[in-house]
Amino acid sequence: MEKQKIAVFGGGSWATAIVKMLLENLDTVGWYMRNEYVIEHIKQNNQNPKYLSSAELDSKKLDLSSNLNDIINNYDVLIFAIPSAFLTAELAKLNTSLKDKTIFSAIKGIVPETGLIIGEHFNKEYNISLENIGVITGPCHAEEVAMERLSYLTIACKDEEKAKNMADALKSWYIKVKISDDIIGTEYAAMLKNIYAVAAGIAHGLGYGDNFQSVLMSNAIREMKRFIKKVHKMKRNINNSAYLGDLLVTGYSTFSRNRMFGNMIGKGYTVKSAQHEMSMIAEGYYATKSAFKIRQDKGGKTPIIDTVYTILYENRNPKKEFKKLTDKLD
Amino acid sequence: MEKQKIAVFGGGSWATAIVKMLLENLDTVGWYMRNEYVIEHIKQNNQNPKYLSSAELDSKKLDLSSNLNDIINNYDVLIFAIPSAFLTAELAKLNTSLKDKTIFSAIKGIVPETGLIIGEHFNKEYNISLENIGVITGPCHAEEVAMERLSYLTIACKDEEKAKNMADALKSWYIKVKISDDIIGTEYAAMLKNIYAVAAGIAHGLGYGDNFQSVLMSNAIREMKRFIKKVHKMKRNINNSAYLGDLLVTGYSTFSRNRMFGNMIGKGYTVKSAQHEMSMIAEGYYATKSAFKIRQDKGGKTPIIDTVYTILYENRNPKKEFKKLTDKLD
Repeated sequence: MEKQKIAVFGGGSWATAIVKMLLENLDTVGWYMRNEYVIEHIKQNNQNPKYLSSAELDSKKLDLSSNLNDIINNYDVLIFAIPSAFLTAELAKLNTSLKDKTIFSAIKGIVPETGLIIGEHFNKEYNISLENIGVITGPCHAEEVAMERLSYLTIACKDEEKAKNMADALKSWYIKVKISDDIIGTEYAAMLKNIYAVAAGIAHGLGYGDNFQSVLMSNAIREMKRFIKKVHKMKRNINNSAYLGDLLVTGYSTFSRNRMFGNMIGKGYTVKSAQHEMSMIAEGYYATKSAFKIRQDKGGKTPIIDTVYTILYENRNPKKEFKKLTDKLD
Repeated sequence: MEKQKIAVFGGGSWATAIVKMLLENLDTVGWYMRNEYVIEHIKQNNQNPKYLSSAELDSKKLDLSSNLNDIINNYDVLIFAIPSAFLTAELAKLNTSLKDKTIFSAIKGIVPETGLIIGEHFNKEYNISLENIGVITGPCHAEEVAMERLSYLTIACKDEEKAKNMADALKSWYIKVKISDDIIGTEYAAMLKNIYAVAAGIAHGLGYGDNFQSVLMSNAIREMKRFIKKVHKMKRNINNSAYLGDLLVTGYSTFSRNRMFGNMIGKGYTVKSAQHEMSMIAEGYYATKSAFKIRQDKGGKTPIIDTVYTILYENRNPKKEFKKLTDKLD
């Protein structure tokens, strides 16, 4: 098979992990990031100084650039791993065509400006056909990719061949890959799990224990199933790794930014002070707003999303709201 | 409502937690345990010196005895929370009738001598009708009951009134209770989750990370669903707290004896040395043998149970067996 021309967009830990995975299989990987200092550092030191610095990256095989359009023009398959909050600003730099490109989202979030998941955003705002859109999803902490600990990915694309090609490009002795045709469901799951991780964090911050966390996660997966069924009804097993596994790896992880953010909220920080303290924005914050809006439009019972929404956006008391939530769980 | 006459059998942490819960609602709780020294200590100090010693137990309301038959004769509803490995020896002391008694299992295991779950054991060996048998299940670490951290129980009984009565006796400001009619499924779930906790421990001991654990748990709940469907087909949502929640609280807990046991096996201990080191026997050890036998009889795909079985009972190399297992998960 001819080597695929794949590029990654983003300089964070998940982008870096994906680049590392691709380097196991490809001779050249395109890599766009804004920060020219980081690009220079990677070229000279074979490692990203800011994220996942323990991962060795063979810079001879990297085509690094801070010019978004150059990278787009030179590659066929584009993997976006830019935090959703910055995606619009990055895409504003676009002055070339995305026609005939295959776009994979590895973002796991929602575009704050449009309230759309990434696949829908490219479909509606950039007129990319759904056949040319795919999703790369976990359960997968980037940190464990750096350590080459066995991890499983799910690649979703309506075009099975495109999914298989991406699977071939990513798999290695420490990465197993499964394909799926549920691009909408896997991406919503990846976005919703961040909200549930915020909820898990709030619960922990409020002093709830492991018994409660397991009940919360058990309710969360049922809520996720109902929610995704409303937005895109198809046959899917919600207990597959891309849905339940992804929920668990995030909800039970102390690494998770969303869980950390929730934990601070539970401990009494305001949203603003928690965001300031973390010097980053948890995806789950935006996801909550969008999910709540979708729920209002489509209906359905989503007590966990509703509770996180009232806490984050209506400034309600976490302790009181969680007390009410506990009566709705079972 | 007239106060129920309920007694608890067993002196361990889960028995102690159940006694504590009952004391919130009842004026008298019967409590059988073997150890007379512990009985004396509880009477004098209002706490179990060996397990859950932080839980205050009002001894004025406790009817403690080391005479199994006395307690059985004086109470209508009997909650068994004796480790399954000792149940046969305890029941050998029986010289009174269990007729007209309602028996609840809080054991979460399998009787090693008969290979039966507790409900089936009482049904088949003691001729107790299934209508008079119930199950008390988590997700619930006893330690968190002692701390009065919010926990959710599921009470399963075919006789809804008996389930409701038990729910009334157990619920309090920190205990929420749900009822179910799935006595077979909830008890198998409680027993199977111990095997998956052993598996999670082995994986951890071998150096697998959080990404893999989430995939393992996602596969475990699907395997549990298939297994329980084979032994007792009925409509159930495997993602309810009694099944998935119970799996998670055990699989993700570092307190879990089963997970600790698995962890030692993963690190290279033999079964014997791990059991010796822990000075107790993990329920999951017996559960594995029984579940494997049931799987052989009934068929079905249970790669995780099979793997744990070959490691614990066929003395196979954990590293090699888990390597093979990773190819069967997705």
